[in-house]
Amino acid sequence: MVIVLKNNATKQQVSELIGRLEKNNVRANLVEGVHSNIIGLIGDTVHIDIEAILANECVETVRRVQEPYKNANRKFHPDNTVLDICGRLTGGDRTQVIAGPCSVESEKQLIETAQACKQAGATMLRGGAFKPRTSPYSFQGLREEGIKILLKAKKETGLPVVTEIMSLAHLDMFSDVDVIQVGARNMQNFELLKALGRCDKPILLKRGLSSTLEELLMSAEYIMSEGNSKVILCERGIRTFEPMTRNTLDISAVALLKQKSHLPVVVDPSHATGLVKLVEPMSLAAVAAGCDALEIEVHCDPKNALSDGSQQLTPQAFAECMVKIKALAQFMGKPVDSVE
Amino acid sequence: MVIVLKNNATKQQVSELIGRLEKNNVRANLVEGVHSNIIGLIGDTVHIDIEAILANECVETVRRVQEPYKNANRKFHPDNTVLDICGRLTGGDRTQVIAGPCSVESEKQLIETAQACKQAGATMLRGGAFKPRTSPYSFQGLREEGIKILLKAKKETGLPVVTEIMSLAHLDMFSDVDVIQVGARNMQNFELLKALGRCDKPILLKRGLSSTLEELLMSAEYIMSEGNSKVILCERGIRTFEPMTRNTLDISAVALLKQKSHLPVVVDPSHATGLVKLVEPMSLAAVAAGCDALEIEVHCDPKNALSDGSQQLTPQAFAECMVKIKALAQFMGKPVDSVE
Amino acid sequence: MVIVLKNNATKQQVSELIGRLEKNNVRANLVEGVHSNIIGLIGDTVHIDIEAILANECVETVRRVQEPYKNANRKFHPDNTVLDICGRLTGGDRTQVIAGPCSVESEKQLIETAQACKQAGATMLRGGAFKPRTSPYSFQGLREEGIKILLKAKKETGLPVVTEIMSLAHLDMFSDVDVIQVGARNMQNFELLKALGRCDKPILLKRGLSSTLEELLMSAEYIMSEGNSKVILCERGIRTFEPMTRNTLDISAVALLKQKSHLPVVVDPSHATGLVKLVEPMSLAAVAAGCDALEIEVHCDPKNALSDGSQQLTPQAFAECMVKIKALAQFMGKPVDSVE
Amino acid sequence: MVIVLKNNATKQQVSELIGRLEKNNVRANLVEGVHSNIIGLIGDTVHIDIEAILANECVETVRRVQEPYKNANRKFHPDNTVLDICGRLTGGDRTQVIAGPCSVESEKQLIETAQACKQAGATMLRGGAFKPRTSPYSFQGLREEGIKILLKAKKETGLPVVTEIMSLAHLDMFSDVDVIQVGARNMQNFELLKALGRCDKPILLKRGLSSTLEELLMSAEYIMSEGNSKVILCERGIRTFEPMTRNTLDISAVALLKQKSHLPVVVDPSHATGLVKLVEPMSLAAVAAGCDALEIEVHCDPKNALSDGSQQLTPQAFAECMVKIKALAQFMGKPVDSVE
Repeated sequence: MVIVLKNNATKQQVSELIGRLEKNNVRANLVEGVHSNIIGLIGDTVHIDIEAILANECVETVRRVQEPYKNANRKFHPDNTVLDICGRLTGGDRTQVIAGPCSVESEKQLIETAQACKQAGATMLRGGAFKPRTSPYSFQGLREEGIKILLKAKKETGLPVVTEIMSLAHLDMFSDVDVIQVGARNMQNFELLKALGRCDKPILLKRGLSSTLEELLMSAEYIMSEGNSKVILCERGIRTFEPMTRNTLDISAVALLKQKSHLPVVVDPSHATGLVKLVEPMSLAAVAAGCDALEIEVHCDPKNALSDGSQQLTPQAFAECMVKIKALAQFMGKPVDSVE
Repeated sequence: MVIVLKNNATKQQVSELIGRLEKNNVRANLVEGVHSNIIGLIGDTVHIDIEAILANECVETVRRVQEPYKNANRKFHPDNTVLDICGRLTGGDRTQVIAGPCSVESEKQLIETAQACKQAGATMLRGGAFKPRTSPYSFQGLREEGIKILLKAKKETGLPVVTEIMSLAHLDMFSDVDVIQVGARNMQNFELLKALGRCDKPILLKRGLSSTLEELLMSAEYIMSEGNSKVILCERGIRTFEPMTRNTLDISAVALLKQKSHLPVVVDPSHATGLVKLVEPMSLAAVAAGCDALEIEVHCDPKNALSDGSQQLTPQAFAECMVKIKALAQFMGKPVDSVE
Repeated sequence: MVIVLKNNATKQQVSELIGRLEKNNVRANLVEGVHSNIIGLIGDTVHIDIEAILANECVETVRRVQEPYKNANRKFHPDNTVLDICGRLTGGDRTQVIAGPCSVESEKQLIETAQACKQAGATMLRGGAFKPRTSPYSFQGLREEGIKILLKAKKETGLPVVTEIMSLAHLDMFSDVDVIQVGARNMQNFELLKALGRCDKPILLKRGLSSTLEELLMSAEYIMSEGNSKVILCERGIRTFEPMTRNTLDISAVALLKQKSHLPVVVDPSHATGLVKLVEPMSLAAVAAGCDALEIEVHCDPKNALSDGSQQLTPQAFAECMVKIKALAQFMGKPVDSVE
Repeated sequence: MVIVLKNNATKQQVSELIGRLEKNNVRANLVEGVHSNIIGLIGDTVHIDIEAILANECVETVRRVQEPYKNANRKFHPDNTVLDICGRLTGGDRTQVIAGPCSVESEKQLIETAQACKQAGATMLRGGAFKPRTSPYSFQGLREEGIKILLKAKKETGLPVVTEIMSLAHLDMFSDVDVIQVGARNMQNFELLKALGRCDKPILLKRGLSSTLEELLMSAEYIMSEGNSKVILCERGIRTFEPMTRNTLDISAVALLKQKSHLPVVVDPSHATGLVKLVEPMSLAAVAAGCDALEIEVHCDPKNALSDGSQQLTPQAFAECMVKIKALAQFMGKPVDSVE
């Protein structure tokens, strides 16, 4: 941590500050310059609060040098984390494709969609039972009933099931789910993250709408610091000024997250763009950028879908898309997982 | 709602679409043009899902004409909502000033700060018991103990108490709190909003970091649609590309929210800027723009604060700031509430 | 300047880097830590290129400590710059109000509007002769003819004239204009800025749509480094994700620019919001935040305006707005300039 | 164009508005609803000013249905535009790779870099002679001398030359350049665009830092409406809140621009990210997303570069990157152009 002092900092202010800092088991190293002086903090600064330092009158700015995340940091865990999700190894040398409808709407709808997804080569099934909707007047999901239908679809197809949790009050209902998803709007629901850190399931953590990559990694750190290291990071588009797409897919996040962290990275081209016609090119871009998995919305009848109809592929469009995804993933050396 | 059809839409597609739409108790009015045709939907479209319409191949774009919020909409409730918070009338012809530390750290710290705030003219007390922190390694708040200290401070000073809830699991602890705050990171924690909609307390709802004003109003709508109409809207800065301030205070939000909605509007200049030296000018700007209340962070010893030291005023700086706020609020015709 | 070195930096890399740095007449001070080492650069680092330092393999990050602007920096020029624009002292203890139409459309339109603006208390006249329009099919301005009309309006009303330049090829036409405006889209048209730095007129420099405050100050620095120190900084809204307003008025920019720089600061509430109904509250907020001037669009017949009709006030609405602006400016201790 | 009227619009206001609209050679079609009425405009609305319509008191909102660009619109020109740049066919079934240093610094530097680029498979040479730098104290480019050096490098290597123009005053110097680049900061320098529209050279038009895709297409339209249809669109990253990368590469822009327009699309991964280690994955993502060309910065000695050192590849790193780009472009069916 580097602390830049103001020009007019007095000796007493600086020595008081150094005293205060060294209570945190770090060493403070003063470098005197012409225009301003600098204090370099040496030691483990993860627990030091930047804001408290800034409250000292003699401080101009503070910069963290060490990354504030540890468990999620590739520097301390050079090898990829590879998660075994019912046999689908995620984060290693295989690409996973999680497909399924935005919302679980009925047993028929889900199972029909799930079978089509499986046939096209999907390796896991997604489907929302609890739905975070901007409007209280929109369909809110089948909730507990939706989870039961997902588990039936798992039984029918053998596909592991990924579904979103919206409140820790519902955690018990997720005991047979294979991957618990945390949505973008809950990425900094810290009480939920801590609770998920105490369970033993893989957590698919979506990046918040305007969260930085460091904040995403810090939210992963919340889960990991409670003991659960099975975290999958998900890039799903960020909010920008561009109105043509619902969000802006931050494709460089894929490569950066793989460089900064050892955790698997999944890309959701459906939410990132909100446009069916962009799902295929964005899936291919994500595979080329090095993602470990894709999460794609597929619905057997999008125009009657109860949510997000405009971004869900038909089974046929998904099948065509999968042909290209499989070929490219193979070419990139990380083939789509083969499920017998 | 206006639906623009593609040039190549077939008669059959269009008539199927119209059939599908009219199942929602609205009338669909087709207007034929040279380059493209338009369907105008007439009736109550609040329950209609734009995404499902977009999933129809023949649809180019869809635009909502009616605002999707009703309970929060000034069109349907022309008069200001005025909330009585232990005698502080909020949303009418008085300005409220909510002051206090970012976090409750100890009984001594809170009561000392609360007394100084009251003396300077604050009309309510804020203080965080549950703290949403980016890092799991930062101070997480005194939690239940913090709420007890807040209630002691209320007893000592007579100031009503505003504090943040982070999980609906904690709701019982808030039974004696006067105003429950929902933080920016939980603005779209819809399960929490629904639970708060079923209690009878005023809810101070902070705008999300990158939430649009319509989304903020829709989150208010979540609370109101469950029966609780005591919602206070809070502008606390949005995330932009500008690095000099922590967030960018969207001052036009104040005037827009007052125009679009009948709910009281509060501005938090401390979180909006993250800089002590901007709190005074931004407070004055907010009052000039027509806000009903300010929420300002004050700490009796900012440089030893356990959170957000750099944005908390000292009691003395707050007292100086209040002199100007009071004078301007008086000038604007909405004086700071006088508490005997 | 602070350079953070990578953990695995070799002694040779570091000593080579120090050698390279010290060629720039600065002293490089190495601080060795546990996790990483830091080099503090002491001396005048304005000419040092951060990017070149980052290209060294052994460098993790680089942070500038000194601000990169000098002429515009209040640290080196503590007193306010006060510009005398035909007797209107801008930047001191008076508030200026620049009013007039978006575009000069005809002699009649401009003179009628100018007289109404003067009568309401405006102290300068604005009007676009060269118009930067997103579409080549929109009205592009009367160009040279427009400037002639502006000068006639000046003769009629005595109001000094502010108008925008779009290309240095037109500079000769601006010889009788009182203030030359650089639009947001040209804030980083560096060749234009340099040319304006060699003339002797006040330059009203608008912040780019997504320019940081530091970039705005660096563009001022371009003008000033060529010899022209008469620069007025203008906040006119930035681009964000919020769709209800055309741009987002960054009100904290007003206070920050006044703190960081000695140059006058003007706010343009018309472009910042794009909405007539926000011009008054945003003007008041800007005055409360400490601006030196306002620039407000007024048109004698907005619904037949050739550009930006939706954000231009009618003369009557402007007159009503001016009553409040004058009262507030007086209250803030910086009355609107009185023009006999 | 769809105009939504306010609830309280009077018959007279509406009929006046319709009269005003129909002066523009369009037909106005009134649809009466329960909550509000709508006017649909039928005909060519490209010349109609939305702002002027919004200035009518009776208007709530206006939505354009037709895209405001014509020459750049794929709807009217379904086939790809393929530009022949000294034999490199750009926009068709070949991928071009434009490589070279950020700035031309010396003959030796440029020619050495150019030869290395050619050897690795680059098909065109880039290099900045005029450099838009945020600071007036940074290296501003060799200017006219730089262009001469570029032309020498062309003679040596046979590579066509791409270089940026910053002012129309310099246009004469570009007579032997093969592609004229317009930088992000000049994307809306409309006077420059018009001048380039009257010359006969391909124009590589970079997207502005916070320009929407529609604005980019409208800037292309400026050039094309003056007669020059040889425009290449360039995605080079947009400004967002994410600090880890200099800009955020908007990869969906590639696919969208190809869908909306017939013009060639190039991606600049160097400026989009500012990070050497992201150039390769982002190049691959761009190829997978369907771009027609890449523009990559390569410098024979990045750590002594006079600008943008941190994002320029060494010749060796570029050669390794080209191996993967070539293989992927081949796989995608659009091989990198072979230059004998």
